[in-house]
Amino acid sequence: MAAEEAAVRAQAEAVRRLKQDKADPDEIAKEVAKLLEMKAQLGGDEGKHKFVLKTPKGTRDYSPKQMAIRERVFNAIITCFKRHGAEVIDTPVFELKETLTGKYGEDSKLIYDLKDQGGELLSLRYDLTVPFARYLAMNKITNIKRYHIAKVYRRDNPAMTRGRYREFYQCDFDIAGQFDPMIPDAECLKIVHEILSDLQLGDFLIKVNDRRILDGMFAVCGVPDSKFRTICSSVDKLDKIPWEEVRSEMVGEKGLSPEAADHIGDYVQLHGGLDLIEQLLQDPKLSQNKLAKEGLGDMKLLFEYLTLFGITGKISFDLSLARGLDYYTGVIFEAVLLQPENDHVEEPVSVGSVAGGGRYDGLVGMFDPKGRKVPCVGVSIGIERIFSILEQRVEASEEKIRTTETQVLVASAQKKLLEERLKLISELWNAGIKAEVLYKKNPKLLNQLQYCEDTGIPLVAIVGEQELKDGVVKLRVVATREEVNVRRESLVEEIRMRTSRP
Amino acid sequence: MAAEEAAVRAQAEAVRRLKQDKADPDEIAKEVAKLLEMKAQLGGDEGKHKFVLKTPKGTRDYSPKQMAIRERVFNAIITCFKRHGAEVIDTPVFELKETLTGKYGEDSKLIYDLKDQGGELLSLRYDLTVPFARYLAMNKITNIKRYHIAKVYRRDNPAMTRGRYREFYQCDFDIAGQFDPMIPDAECLKIVHEILSDLQLGDFLIKVNDRRILDGMFAVCGVPDSKFRTICSSVDKLDKIPWEEVRSEMVGEKGLSPEAADHIGDYVQLHGGLDLIEQLLQDPKLSQNKLAKEGLGDMKLLFEYLTLFGITGKISFDLSLARGLDYYTGVIFEAVLLQPENDHVEEPVSVGSVAGGGRYDGLVGMFDPKGRKVPCVGVSIGIERIFSILEQRVEASEEKIRTTETQVLVASAQKKLLEERLKLISELWNAGIKAEVLYKKNPKLLNQLQYCEDTGIPLVAIVGEQELKDGVVKLRVVATREEVNVRRESLVEEIRMRTSRP
Repeated sequence: MAAEEAAVRAQAEAVRRLKQDKADPDEIAKEVAKLLEMKAQLGGDEGKHKFVLKTPKGTRDYSPKQMAIRERVFNAIITCFKRHGAEVIDTPVFELKETLTGKYGEDSKLIYDLKDQGGELLSLRYDLTVPFARYLAMNKITNIKRYHIAKVYRRDNPAMTRGRYREFYQCDFDIAGQFDPMIPDAECLKIVHEILSDLQLGDFLIKVNDRRILDGMFAVCGVPDSKFRTICSSVDKLDKIPWEEVRSEMVGEKGLSPEAADHIGDYVQLHGGLDLIEQLLQDPKLSQNKLAKEGLGDMKLLFEYLTLFGITGKISFDLSLARGLDYYTGVIFEAVLLQPENDHVEEPVSVGSVAGGGRYDGLVGMFDPKGRKVPCVGVSIGIERIFSILEQRVEASEEKIRTTETQVLVASAQKKLLEERLKLISELWNAGIKAEVLYKKNPKLLNQLQYCEDTGIPLVAIVGEQELKDGVVKLRVVATREEVNVRRESLVEEIRMRTSRP
Repeated sequence: MAAEEAAVRAQAEAVRRLKQDKADPDEIAKEVAKLLEMKAQLGGDEGKHKFVLKTPKGTRDYSPKQMAIRERVFNAIITCFKRHGAEVIDTPVFELKETLTGKYGEDSKLIYDLKDQGGELLSLRYDLTVPFARYLAMNKITNIKRYHIAKVYRRDNPAMTRGRYREFYQCDFDIAGQFDPMIPDAECLKIVHEILSDLQLGDFLIKVNDRRILDGMFAVCGVPDSKFRTICSSVDKLDKIPWEEVRSEMVGEKGLSPEAADHIGDYVQLHGGLDLIEQLLQDPKLSQNKLAKEGLGDMKLLFEYLTLFGITGKISFDLSLARGLDYYTGVIFEAVLLQPENDHVEEPVSVGSVAGGGRYDGLVGMFDPKGRKVPCVGVSIGIERIFSILEQRVEASEEKIRTTETQVLVASAQKKLLEERLKLISELWNAGIKAEVLYKKNPKLLNQLQYCEDTGIPLVAIVGEQELKDGVVKLRVVATREEVNVRRESLVEEIRMRTSRP
């Protein structure tokens, strides 16, 4: 390519020289034609544009309007995380490939790898939890409460209309450390409750279960140890496909006995609150299983704390909740939005998961050279789905969203006042006022006022010959068309007063 | 690997069954040994940890303390961008490989490519300017003022102590659109001036030049057209190596005549202000060159606007400034920090570039199917270097940086008050108070107070048997050890009042 480009450049120079030397026009024309042909073959900047003008599959740009909505959501989430005393960290967008290896089970095939360009083998991060565990082990941190908001990458089949992308944000809050049981776990659920309430996304339900209860249940149902994980994966599908299909996967594909499957089927339809926990603690089989008993005891404690937080109304202990990821070891949970009741459905139907998380006490130990464990529990808010809902709502309401915060446009009614406009706007910028000016020497007043209407700028500061002589600026309120003369030295204060938020 | 893992699982199950069946201990021991050997060979989660615990070369994690400093810098920059009326956009971290092709000249070899996993060929973004131009062309936008703060990726040789990384942030502000000359260009320089002043990084200098002046200079010095770009690259090295070396590169490697090189040498040592511009406008050779004349005329206009903004004191028209990137077409600039004068050096020495930018009127046209141009000018703030300086300063000053914003710790002096603590903190969270609680059933008061000292929490709300009976909470000011009883219904207001910023 470089050689071809050099040839094109040489040819271009030859043409230039011919022109300079006022050579025979026919000869020039011949050489120009040759040059154009070379350029077309090269397909370079000045040739044809054959490439597709798009973002990569499963990704998107955010326009200023979308960014305004996105920032609202982030603000609500970050405010909540800070309310709970979290610090913030950041990690690189890619990790050593081996850092991610063996953490995601079957989903590992969705990891983006970087090309081997000499040096280390790298992969884009798949979630924020594994980098967090790597960070803790690497820095020997045994105690932290942190949040992390960043993009993660999965080579999944995108369904962008439903808010599923290959590049998407996760907003994670995690508590690492050895503490008394269920207190941090309860706080994670409180956080989900606060965020979903704040964002006013409509009714929601937080399903809770425990990996130990699931494992105990599998044991008492007669599932062989070796099949725990794969049967757990089948149970995880219950929110998408009916029990009959899940059952036939268990029996047909995974070789589980029909009796064991039916036994599981009885359990996984159970959901409730403290009453159900009490009932299962009395269950003749489950109560004999050590893991299940531990899990149920902790679940009871969790519900006591959730009662103190006053949020049990939206929490359901649900034996069908399994969660896909391998690394969970205790409490797991998932928040779903419910369809509004006026949609003529008898029972509220879940329209999708918007948050999830759980306890993973073994992950940090996988990175520690001596296998030292750091117990962790955390929650991840799935922003894209929430963002899609809010975007559709804004679209439907025709709410006008401002994409800038400009307080005042510096304008002029007459010509030849560019210098005065620049002098004034410089004063305003230096005083911290958010101000704009049209980049024209002599803009029409009408165009300047129209710009304010279009972009929602509330004030116009108009300089004119007379005002300059009098030491004043004419301040116009765009909404009311009211105009007042303000002394130049009071202008900053006047603008601040008129644009301070109520 | 999957087959080996399955074998290990099968062996583990065999061991389990032998134990369950209370088999011969020797047989169990033999099978356990076999299992351990298999695990060690697999090197999996429970085997040896042979991998290196690190972040990829040239990247780093940000600790909570570093994030606190980073957010201060971002805030200063975003505040400035918003003050100038900018909207914000975001683009994906990777682009189609062909989107980046042919935009960066020799530096293209530093682009990170993703592995071909079927589907599109992708590369990590190298800067934010090319994605911005792609965004404008794709959405047919001809007029926008936007900022974009995001990480970019370059497979360069990292020099991390000097703030040079392979993954680093850029903070870009750009103005796209057809406007009257030099008004947006002047605003970009004003922005650099405002940000560097705000951040109090010490003295700085903004060097300005114009690609048209450079090209005109090359022409009158007798540089052949075909060598403009490569000689421009040589000039660009003048901030790192002395003129003698640059000259020998021009003559030796790049085949320029010694006369032309010396002629260039005379020009590139020139720097100044309006006076120099006037002088060059009278220069017998330069004034005859169309490009140089255009560039000098615009430079004069630019300096007039900069005079109105009152910032010419830190701006130097510098004929040695060339900038590396291919896509600039007009004004170019670069801001450098100067060494403090008390370092016993006669003239202030530049310690490195912290911002740069310029006009690129042709880049959007490279993406438009019909080659339609959108004139653009913009600035990019190099955050990592600034961040390094501020981090070192904080380190040296022993300033204690808070990494959380927690207003109050909910504590108890007696045992068995966990439930009361959780009830109270839930009330505070619901009222928007930033509050923490220790995750222990019966923490010692001393430990709770120590936690506040360590993390900078200013207030402690202490619940006790007597206070509960009296309907009050004991509020303790950590700094002064002052304690007051506050009625429970006034607690939120009291905490707000005592922790509002002055």
